[in-house]
Amino acid sequence: MPRPPFSRLAADLPDTVPFVGPETIERRLGRPFRARIGANESGFGAAPQTIAAMQAEAPEAWKYGDPENYDLRAAIAQHCGVRATEIAAGDGVDSLLGLAARLYINPGDPVITSLGGYPTFDFHVVGFGGREVKVPFVDYRENLDGLLAAVEREGAHLVYLANPDNPMGTWWPASDVSAFMDALPEDTMLILDEAYGELAPAGTLPDIHPLRPNVLRMRTFSKAYGMAGVRVGYVIGEEQTIAAFNRVRNHFAISRIGQAGAIAALGAQQWLRETVAEIITCRDRLGKIGRNNGLTPIPSATNFVTMDTGSNAAFARAILEALATRGVFIRKPGGPGLDHCIRISVGPHEALDILEAELPGAIAEAKAAEG
Amino acid sequence: MPRPPFSRLAADLPDTVPFVGPETIERRLGRPFRARIGANESGFGAAPQTIAAMQAEAPEAWKYGDPENYDLRAAIAQHCGVRATEIAAGDGVDSLLGLAARLYINPGDPVITSLGGYPTFDFHVVGFGGREVKVPFVDYRENLDGLLAAVEREGAHLVYLANPDNPMGTWWPASDVSAFMDALPEDTMLILDEAYGELAPAGTLPDIHPLRPNVLRMRTFSKAYGMAGVRVGYVIGEEQTIAAFNRVRNHFAISRIGQAGAIAALGAQQWLRETVAEIITCRDRLGKIGRNNGLTPIPSATNFVTMDTGSNAAFARAILEALATRGVFIRKPGGPGLDHCIRISVGPHEALDILEAELPGAIAEAKAAEG
Repeated sequence: MPRPPFSRLAADLPDTVPFVGPETIERRLGRPFRARIGANESGFGAAPQTIAAMQAEAPEAWKYGDPENYDLRAAIAQHCGVRATEIAAGDGVDSLLGLAARLYINPGDPVITSLGGYPTFDFHVVGFGGREVKVPFVDYRENLDGLLAAVEREGAHLVYLANPDNPMGTWWPASDVSAFMDALPEDTMLILDEAYGELAPAGTLPDIHPLRPNVLRMRTFSKAYGMAGVRVGYVIGEEQTIAAFNRVRNHFAISRIGQAGAIAALGAQQWLRETVAEIITCRDRLGKIGRNNGLTPIPSATNFVTMDTGSNAAFARAILEALATRGVFIRKPGGPGLDHCIRISVGPHEALDILEAELPGAIAEAKAAEG
Repeated sequence: MPRPPFSRLAADLPDTVPFVGPETIERRLGRPFRARIGANESGFGAAPQTIAAMQAEAPEAWKYGDPENYDLRAAIAQHCGVRATEIAAGDGVDSLLGLAARLYINPGDPVITSLGGYPTFDFHVVGFGGREVKVPFVDYRENLDGLLAAVEREGAHLVYLANPDNPMGTWWPASDVSAFMDALPEDTMLILDEAYGELAPAGTLPDIHPLRPNVLRMRTFSKAYGMAGVRVGYVIGEEQTIAAFNRVRNHFAISRIGQAGAIAALGAQQWLRETVAEIITCRDRLGKIGRNNGLTPIPSATNFVTMDTGSNAAFARAILEALATRGVFIRKPGGPGLDHCIRISVGPHEALDILEAELPGAIAEAKAAEG
């Protein structure tokens, strides 16, 4: 029987999904995780005033959220030192990455990114028919020179860089990122994913000004602000570029509760500083737990620590699976050259206590399986 | 200075937006509306247990929502009498319409819809390069025969029908819709938008079974369930069709709070029945208010009443603007043949009291301006 034909682009897309959620694994295992430290969520939670603002908005959520996100963009603009017209808000960076892909990719266009980089960016590039050209990490860092060379070799108009990086947690100082931007052709758009920016050491994020016509900087409330399940992110760019998001975005995408929560979160900067300090303390502890178990933690500017297992992808996978059966959810990088590592999100001490108790057994089990 | 080039599709898109939000008008007027009865939101609110569920989930929203929406889809499936694999959930019907457009439209493809129909569907069709062929309403109803004739004439693989309809509030009984589906070519996909389905009289929605390979039925928590600002909708279809949404959807799109709220809402069927009865009572009153002011309410199966002003688009626009300055937010249809009407959402009695007090003055002002 004939069926309605998919579009040429959609017909060829794979059925793969960017991430398997912890709930899927929980359903498979038949019990909930005791430590949820795999998706770089923040177990430190959102600020009390953020939670209160969302709860207070719940009875008002019969109304659509403001499709201009006016108050939210005003608050972000003030926070970042730009104008509201230089901000587009969206329901998370994932969504904004999809919109950017749609704005800039023709089927067949080369798009430059890192091999083993953020799967959801890959998902969107493939989804809009882009041809990904992937540059391997060097020393567990994104290869700025390599990315630039690929842009020039391919004549690419779109390149993606995460700084700090996911899944490795490494980073380049602002000066290197600025030099990268300076060297980029004027007609190549850089998507600079700064989702982990609030967690990075001072001097990691380049100055906002001057805004460049060929840079989009993406930020989120999902990580340091502890609002992953609320879905609010934003992108900073030159006014003319930002205006184009209106052509393709879902204008009512950000929930009313999310807008209220994000505005409250921006007002909680003292809480944010204290929470980031707490995350860094726990990040140090997480690294020690890894070292005590024979793993080599890679220096991190994020809320996760990726650890070199000193072995191979199968071994890393075995640790991950052994931890899952022990009630601990973690993830691992998937790219060649990175996939012998495991990636553990920084949880609060209670979560790390569980990891600390379970990691030795999981590693022993992985070694036995290797044996 | 050269800039990064937009994709060919994005470069040609207009800067128009589907809807101007009431907040935009409030900012222009410098004060909030006293009666917000323009966006077909439900001033009757969400169920108490829905609000409570969202508030309870707020502290948990540091976790991403389940990307499979497993529990939510299971609850919807049970509610609708289908399998979970026959449901895709999304952050509102607006988003699902965009995904369907992306799945089915090649640039240049004809897409059949009604002239003056849902602007957000138009936004998505244009956004993916479709060529819209618009069929005028007949007697304020979508023209089923005309839509079918256009499908056949154009060889279109995609057609959109809202039943009950927005912006007119009219509807076809299930038997006519079923006959329409029977007559549709097997390789033409029907998007059947049933956003207002819970508000329609019995016998309006065709049976769910048999599921057809060429029908996608869209429903939402935004209208009768009173959750517009939460962003949850779903689409029912054959398993093979539904699976394709995974290729293009934002897997983490539905907030954790939204998933919890929608599940609770499905459990509140007694509340829903009572609320729909209340909405229908107020819909009758809204019609009377219109008639008392010389307007002709069009029979409605929705939570709004569209009213024929007996004049022209300028007059309808003048009423709308006069009401806005009096603190009452309403909207109007934009399509030729419909645009002499105004569209007023059914609010609770307090909102209708304000409308009742302000409508005579607004109409007098519009008549004076017509003068």
